[in-house]
Amino acid sequence: MSTGVAVLGSTGSIGRSTLNVLQRQSDHFHAVALTANRSIDLLKQQAELVKPDFVGLSGADGEDCPAWVSEQGADSLEHAATHPGVDVVVNAVVGAAGLRATLAALRAGKRVALANKESLVMAGDIVNEALEEGGGELIPVDSEHSAVLQCITGYGKSEVARLILTASGGPFRSLARDRIREATAEQALNHPTWEMGRKITVDSATLANKALEVIEAHYLFGLDYDQVEVVVHPQSIVHSFVDFVDGSILAQVGFPNMELPILYALTHPGRLADDGVRRYNPVAAGNIEFEEVRHDAFPTFGLGVQSGRDGGTAPAVFNAANEVAVRVFLEGGMLLGGVPDVIEEVLNAHEVQQAASLEAVVEADRWAREKAEQICSQ
Amino acid sequence: MSTGVAVLGSTGSIGRSTLNVLQRQSDHFHAVALTANRSIDLLKQQAELVKPDFVGLSGADGEDCPAWVSEQGADSLEHAATHPGVDVVVNAVVGAAGLRATLAALRAGKRVALANKESLVMAGDIVNEALEEGGGELIPVDSEHSAVLQCITGYGKSEVARLILTASGGPFRSLARDRIREATAEQALNHPTWEMGRKITVDSATLANKALEVIEAHYLFGLDYDQVEVVVHPQSIVHSFVDFVDGSILAQVGFPNMELPILYALTHPGRLADDGVRRYNPVAAGNIEFEEVRHDAFPTFGLGVQSGRDGGTAPAVFNAANEVAVRVFLEGGMLLGGVPDVIEEVLNAHEVQQAASLEAVVEADRWAREKAEQICSQ
Repeated sequence: MSTGVAVLGSTGSIGRSTLNVLQRQSDHFHAVALTANRSIDLLKQQAELVKPDFVGLSGADGEDCPAWVSEQGADSLEHAATHPGVDVVVNAVVGAAGLRATLAALRAGKRVALANKESLVMAGDIVNEALEEGGGELIPVDSEHSAVLQCITGYGKSEVARLILTASGGPFRSLARDRIREATAEQALNHPTWEMGRKITVDSATLANKALEVIEAHYLFGLDYDQVEVVVHPQSIVHSFVDFVDGSILAQVGFPNMELPILYALTHPGRLADDGVRRYNPVAAGNIEFEEVRHDAFPTFGLGVQSGRDGGTAPAVFNAANEVAVRVFLEGGMLLGGVPDVIEEVLNAHEVQQAASLEAVVEADRWAREKAEQICSQ
Repeated sequence: MSTGVAVLGSTGSIGRSTLNVLQRQSDHFHAVALTANRSIDLLKQQAELVKPDFVGLSGADGEDCPAWVSEQGADSLEHAATHPGVDVVVNAVVGAAGLRATLAALRAGKRVALANKESLVMAGDIVNEALEEGGGELIPVDSEHSAVLQCITGYGKSEVARLILTASGGPFRSLARDRIREATAEQALNHPTWEMGRKITVDSATLANKALEVIEAHYLFGLDYDQVEVVVHPQSIVHSFVDFVDGSILAQVGFPNMELPILYALTHPGRLADDGVRRYNPVAAGNIEFEEVRHDAFPTFGLGVQSGRDGGTAPAVFNAANEVAVRVFLEGGMLLGGVPDVIEEVLNAHEVQQAASLEAVVEADRWAREKAEQICSQ
């Protein structure tokens, strides 16, 4: 029996990789629904190729709806996620827009293959409640969290002592603090090991991305922040480590390729034979190095992890302020050093509330964006 | 409820480490039986400390039996393994003497934590039959096979594409072929990363040890020889890799310490909190390198793997010839290059038989030892 998949954000990097995986594994999976934000031409091509039952254009609203599009607007994400025949939702929407779809899918008892970091960062407790309520499954697509899941499969969570997430360190890994502060968008977009979207590439250059992943790991694996460490690993070969209570360490390794964690999110706890990933060869992969995170040079990382520790609405505020600051940075409105400055100012101005309802989270997100915009335009 | 453990070969390196583990984990395990070959003083100390029900001195025969020794002679190994109250047998006997105890324990439905390579190398099919017959369990203690078991736990054997066993490369990893051939016992005993007994340290210098591990992996995990690769890894941090059918790789890593695989062999598929192992830190561990095996410089490795592929009595003959050659080498009777020369001559003179019975294996072992002695004394 073929498993039905909804791909939210099908025209982005993760979405395109997901369609590659579905194509190779067409004996086991088929796309039931696709959505894109605004990339209408690519979405049309994809829809013609995979012939889904539902096509959503989530970023278009109030405009004329082409005949081949089932629905326009933000609600199309939730409708795609809960469309009849959907068993697994690959949520590859970028940003806060992906949260409602995650909740809707989990409440409907679906498996969510989660690439949308914001779902857990903004509303980790609410997502975990929806997970429990609906009896769905939440499986990470991030390479780091997929690595952790692959290592702990077969063991109990009580047997995990700590995680060591790896970070490539981005293009500024070895650069002096002041030089990093002066970096431009062009420099930040030159990532050494992973090809990703623009926003996430900048987040990788500031290590904001890694802070978001620490917060995600906290919610995904039910671990304290003291149990989640980060180490810089320039080669991006080791995708993360799990340290067990007996002192044993498992790691998942391989050449960087997002199609593997996507496939694993579909097949977990099993695996399917697949030849889409370049076979790992330890000798060909070369030397493997690890370094400590340079906290002074990457203040965004510490701000993000601290927002996680503060809990409540703090991580949503961190995330929103970072999104605005990165957009302004990419538009040339400031240098890279402005990103942590803006985030810190927003976090300092924020009074942390409990993230008890989606409304509270959405309000904190709205407030933080407004505040960040205001700071950036000064 | 405390699990009863028989430690066969308790005065050797693995045996002593096992007693350390049992002492730390005394809430969960206790020693029911101890045996040693001839190290009577250390065995007496151990027996006074852990107060086992049974003490065997397997290498003493026909001599006066001290009052504190339950039994002398080779049979004491089997009697220790099947003593009432024994749930797990840690078989750390060196050499062919360990085989009968493995078979007796498996036939009695015990878990065997196997450090005795010869059990599988000499009689892999017979051991697997005994395993099936008795409903026991066979859990590896070798760090490489423990690493594999830890990685595949939670997954099915059909999901494994290949293993990549790591080899430290020993003290002669980078030495020219001719210099290796001229090496003395003193040079060979200077192992860079692991502290082990003398025989196994020489086996590590010739990579005979790694050939034996390839054969063990074949029988332990039911894989073809083409699915078991070896890569040199001088730091001994990655204890082995498992390559799954989807292209994902898991590895078990950590600072070299045999107490961890011993503990895991006792607790598998679970884990117990333990602080006996130095906590792994990727940064402190330093760079990790991998190299291809230099087959021309380490001919013993290729001879061993080929004996595994030939099957039947061939690996028993390889093992016996190697044991004799290493003993003569350690006694100063020849240089290291003599070891593969002797093995090759013995293998060439051997007509491979089916290893259908223990008798056939024991006869092949006896023949090979005689032949090797004869060659060495020429």
